[in-house]
Amino acid sequence: MTTTDLSAKLNREQAQAELFDLLRIPSVSSDSTRKGDMLTAAEFLRAKLSAIGFTARVDQTPGHPVVYAERLNAPGKPTVLIYGHYDVQPEAPLEEWVTPPFEPTVRDGRIYARGSTDDKGQAFAHVKGAELLLQEGELPVNVKFLLEGEEEVGSPSLEPYLRAHADELKCDVIVISDGSRFAADVPTVTYGLRGLSYVEILVQGANRDLHSGSYGGAAPNPINALCEIIARLKDDQGRITIPGFYDGIEELTQEERDMWAKLPHSDEEFAGSIGASALPGEEGYTTLERIWARPTLDVNGIWGGFQGEGSKTVIAAKAGAKVSMRLVPGQDPARITRLIQEYVPQIAPRGVQVEVRDHHGGQPVKFDLSSPFIKAADRALTRVFGREAAFGRTGGSIPIVAAFADILKAPVLLVDMGLNEDAPHSPNESFALEDYHRGILTSAYLLEELAQ
Amino acid sequence: MTTTDLSAKLNREQAQAELFDLLRIPSVSSDSTRKGDMLTAAEFLRAKLSAIGFTARVDQTPGHPVVYAERLNAPGKPTVLIYGHYDVQPEAPLEEWVTPPFEPTVRDGRIYARGSTDDKGQAFAHVKGAELLLQEGELPVNVKFLLEGEEEVGSPSLEPYLRAHADELKCDVIVISDGSRFAADVPTVTYGLRGLSYVEILVQGANRDLHSGSYGGAAPNPINALCEIIARLKDDQGRITIPGFYDGIEELTQEERDMWAKLPHSDEEFAGSIGASALPGEEGYTTLERIWARPTLDVNGIWGGFQGEGSKTVIAAKAGAKVSMRLVPGQDPARITRLIQEYVPQIAPRGVQVEVRDHHGGQPVKFDLSSPFIKAADRALTRVFGREAAFGRTGGSIPIVAAFADILKAPVLLVDMGLNEDAPHSPNESFALEDYHRGILTSAYLLEELAQ
Repeated sequence: MTTTDLSAKLNREQAQAELFDLLRIPSVSSDSTRKGDMLTAAEFLRAKLSAIGFTARVDQTPGHPVVYAERLNAPGKPTVLIYGHYDVQPEAPLEEWVTPPFEPTVRDGRIYARGSTDDKGQAFAHVKGAELLLQEGELPVNVKFLLEGEEEVGSPSLEPYLRAHADELKCDVIVISDGSRFAADVPTVTYGLRGLSYVEILVQGANRDLHSGSYGGAAPNPINALCEIIARLKDDQGRITIPGFYDGIEELTQEERDMWAKLPHSDEEFAGSIGASALPGEEGYTTLERIWARPTLDVNGIWGGFQGEGSKTVIAAKAGAKVSMRLVPGQDPARITRLIQEYVPQIAPRGVQVEVRDHHGGQPVKFDLSSPFIKAADRALTRVFGREAAFGRTGGSIPIVAAFADILKAPVLLVDMGLNEDAPHSPNESFALEDYHRGILTSAYLLEELAQ
Repeated sequence: MTTTDLSAKLNREQAQAELFDLLRIPSVSSDSTRKGDMLTAAEFLRAKLSAIGFTARVDQTPGHPVVYAERLNAPGKPTVLIYGHYDVQPEAPLEEWVTPPFEPTVRDGRIYARGSTDDKGQAFAHVKGAELLLQEGELPVNVKFLLEGEEEVGSPSLEPYLRAHADELKCDVIVISDGSRFAADVPTVTYGLRGLSYVEILVQGANRDLHSGSYGGAAPNPINALCEIIARLKDDQGRITIPGFYDGIEELTQEERDMWAKLPHSDEEFAGSIGASALPGEEGYTTLERIWARPTLDVNGIWGGFQGEGSKTVIAAKAGAKVSMRLVPGQDPARITRLIQEYVPQIAPRGVQVEVRDHHGGQPVKFDLSSPFIKAADRALTRVFGREAAFGRTGGSIPIVAAFADILKAPVLLVDMGLNEDAPHSPNESFALEDYHRGILTSAYLLEELAQ
């Protein structure tokens, strides 16, 4: 491939007009009255992909349809699957929008509309990127598009769809743009996600609520017991005490640590941004290392006894807590869940019964930093931003990524075009026009670089 | 005084008929539609006390009236103030009553009616006890009756009434029968109550709820922090770690420990009665000692984060717990509250702000076991039951007792005539006819013995 400068060839006005047409369709997947709008959005994408030269169709699912398109005219070259979603979050609270959520408006260089960044803007940038290349000739790689309509409601139909179409969806690499890069001037490739083990700890003391005067000092108190259990799950250095918890973890390489240390991150600013006076955590790791590459244990909810105004002198019969553990490569969610299920009864105080219920889990994911796909993404982003990409991970768990990795057995490149300030899911969601244009170019250059 | 056998002189049929008249009045203090019934009950008692020779009146309060009566014809003899209450708990759920709550019925030797044991039956037994003595001659001591109508709604008017009438209510000893004795065949005098310090611990982490994926490992988690704080408030031996907490506590005497060890108590039965597999608590003390004479720290309620069905991966911004400490003689509630307010910030993990709010407190109370009043009660109960009384304490805090002790500066004898199986506050509340008769005799004998 020649690596021409496509920037001059991009018709920005037309790209904006077409995205606006898509943004005007109120494709809210959780709103059953908008089933028709969902179909309209899917059909819009199918027609567009068809018009630029893809074989495109709309596949029905038990929920909202999937748009599938392919153009496989690059024999011997890699096959790239681009995933995105055309459904959006509900627009409520409507009164907080400066301009209506489904009437896209540009203010200060930003497109304001529901779905502008999440994910219509980013997904459509890939469509426009492919179009840009096709205007110049043929696509340098084989390209498949998979655009679903249920991402905002947990993608219930996606996994069955992937399994049913696994052969057709076969690819060498999966590209997803559905998030925020590290900072405005830092193009980012995300190459790892944490996994998850989510459990509920239930503690039972007496068989009924007791008066704390008549029984206090002798009756088991399940709330105190629950607090003791939770406190015992971590040591003074912030390390999780579950035996075997850290076994098999892939340690951070020095290369990764050096790379992350160079990212523009300030603990002070980070703490300030959430109003915290300190950033406690596992000793021996930086904040980014702790969030991206170290496992955690956080209580996400706790309850028991009297929660109303004022006071009630009761010893509750039961208490409970929701506990999630973020996992890193080398840890298996099912094994970790089993370990905590075995451990909690061992550290429970006398007089209470404990139960640890398995809620759900998710596999941690990490892609090989030395893979040629990673290098290709770096080159593409460098061409767009004029600086090398940052390679980071993310602390969250994206179930669809694990599903892709698991079912299609291909690495996933997360090339996020947005920024946190885009406020996805919030009123006045926006997407910088420049980020949309850079996204289109990134997509085109990425396909070129992946062909190398 | 001669110590004659009054049992033969008690007209049991008439005593029952009169109590039934009182029980028929639905004097539910929390029900504003029954203000008239409250007045009817107060007037019934005033008229009865007047008829047997007391100077009696009904005093209005901002709430329900107080019945006050006195007969002070024993110069040089002690003055005994008898406290009781004529208001009752609501009767709901009505459908669970075998016979209507305000139509007293005898089944298997028990009077079934709302208020039968709590407290009309026990309070009226004292009225009948005085009447029994007056049939034989003069009262051997000076007697004052204070019967209130707001005990079941927290006695809001009692403390102001005691302060306003402190001179008139002056007495040497206060007698209250409004509870349950240790066991059916164990007449009991309760000579101590625990006090209370009740606080709320509030923990703030970040300034908003955070996603546990994006922030887990670095952001402070107020629920984990709260659990650590609570766990640190006790050590492995079940002792409270607040510095100075145990300072000044009156240790149990060997006499008390021996006395309580002889009471018919079984840890196994006690644990079985509440369905607990063990009775955890402070090491080095028996169960009764722990409940009656040792301080405690119990969490009465806890909350934070996501409490619904399923899972949510949130790091909450705040969490809280209600914590009560039962206190024993030698501990001052205000001082203990201050100590925990100073201590919690010291043991709080980094990154969170804590606040310890003072809810309310109550003084612990203990009466001198060697006092002649205690001995008199023992003799009176021995005459009725044919066996010596047990002297115990109670783990609860009875605010009115602390108010009596505080304002009238007189010791309080708790001579309970009921049993737990009477089910006060529940449907089918009852009072054994025999306990009612024994209560009348206990009251009469107690007045005789207090004259010695």
